[in-house]
Amino acid sequence: MSNIFDFTGGASGQWNVTRITPVRGEPLVHVPCLNIVSASLTKSDHGLWTLKGVRSNLRYTEKNEQEKLQSIQANLARPEATHAALIPIRKSEDWWKLAQDDRRKIFEAQSKHIETGLKYLPAIARRLYHCRDLNEPFDFLTWFEYAPKDADAFEELVRMLRTTEEWKFVDREVDIRLIRARE
Amino acid sequence: MSNIFDFTGGASGQWNVTRITPVRGEPLVHVPCLNIVSASLTKSDHGLWTLKGVRSNLRYTEKNEQEKLQSIQANLARPEATHAALIPIRKSEDWWKLAQDDRRKIFEAQSKHIETGLKYLPAIARRLYHCRDLNEPFDFLTWFEYAPKDADAFEELVRMLRTTEEWKFVDREVDIRLIRARE
Repeated sequence: MSNIFDFTGGASGQWNVTRITPVRGEPLVHVPCLNIVSASLTKSDHGLWTLKGVRSNLRYTEKNEQEKLQSIQANLARPEATHAALIPIRKSEDWWKLAQDDRRKIFEAQSKHIETGLKYLPAIARRLYHCRDLNEPFDFLTWFEYAPKDADAFEELVRMLRTTEEWKFVDREVDIRLIRARE
Repeated sequence: MSNIFDFTGGASGQWNVTRITPVRGEPLVHVPCLNIVSASLTKSDHGLWTLKGVRSNLRYTEKNEQEKLQSIQANLARPEATHAALIPIRKSEDWWKLAQDDRRKIFEAQSKHIETGLKYLPAIARRLYHCRDLNEPFDFLTWFEYAPKDADAFEELVRMLRTTEEWKFVDREVDIRLIRARE
């Protein structure tokens, strides 16, 4: 079983795209649907674009944070969570040259990335896919699922993260909003 | 320019294989030569086996350690460094489930991975390639280059690392020794 997933924008998929907003840097071409499939390292030629990401180990989360997260976080694919967001992000070379402790300081001590995320659990289910090491155009695919009643909370979370010190290192970001397609 | 490299064991290459010793877990088939080439994610069908790895950011090194390492470390391909070792390593699921601070504690506070490595610089040039997120059989390809006069020091370094707490999490390891082929 592979940890690698393809996020394909095209004519069909489990999610209907409601809007694609370029936040920083080069945009992505608009597509009507998003399809997510378990994949390999082979480049997909489906759809108009495919972003590849891999589920990996946590890179900054400390043990006490991990325990808090695990005790409260929601699973993906909850029936009520019909809204989703795919927000691919790339960070600058300056970020990647930093030592681990400097990145951790910016990530949590200064930007409270985990602490902020915790406030929105279990309403906003999150999953992170890594893609920097796959020679992809982004470094991360961040994925969120929530019920329509939590849409305002989600906007607040995204707004807060974008004002942080950490986000100063984000040099490409596209915000893709989705609604689960009827099966 | 890709950060991905293929290490192919086969009939030709820049390095002659002197021995392949299985240290833990499944061995690798013996080959006469090792070839290292800049690659893509596409699976190579050259040689008897190919291990793929990617140069990535540092995952544990802190700023003061990074500065020490950068001030003293040697480049690869020094003319006198005619000996090399490729030691592919896999760590257990127990390791990967640990939080970042727990992995760091084992890595440095308990096992002194960086401190030990520093003692053997600049004699032993090192480079780390990541491969866990590429669905590869190993998690890391560790690469070392040294002059024949430093061969004893290299054996000492390898022996010390294998006695550490960190190494208890290594569940597959193969030790491949090489001599640079005449051009």
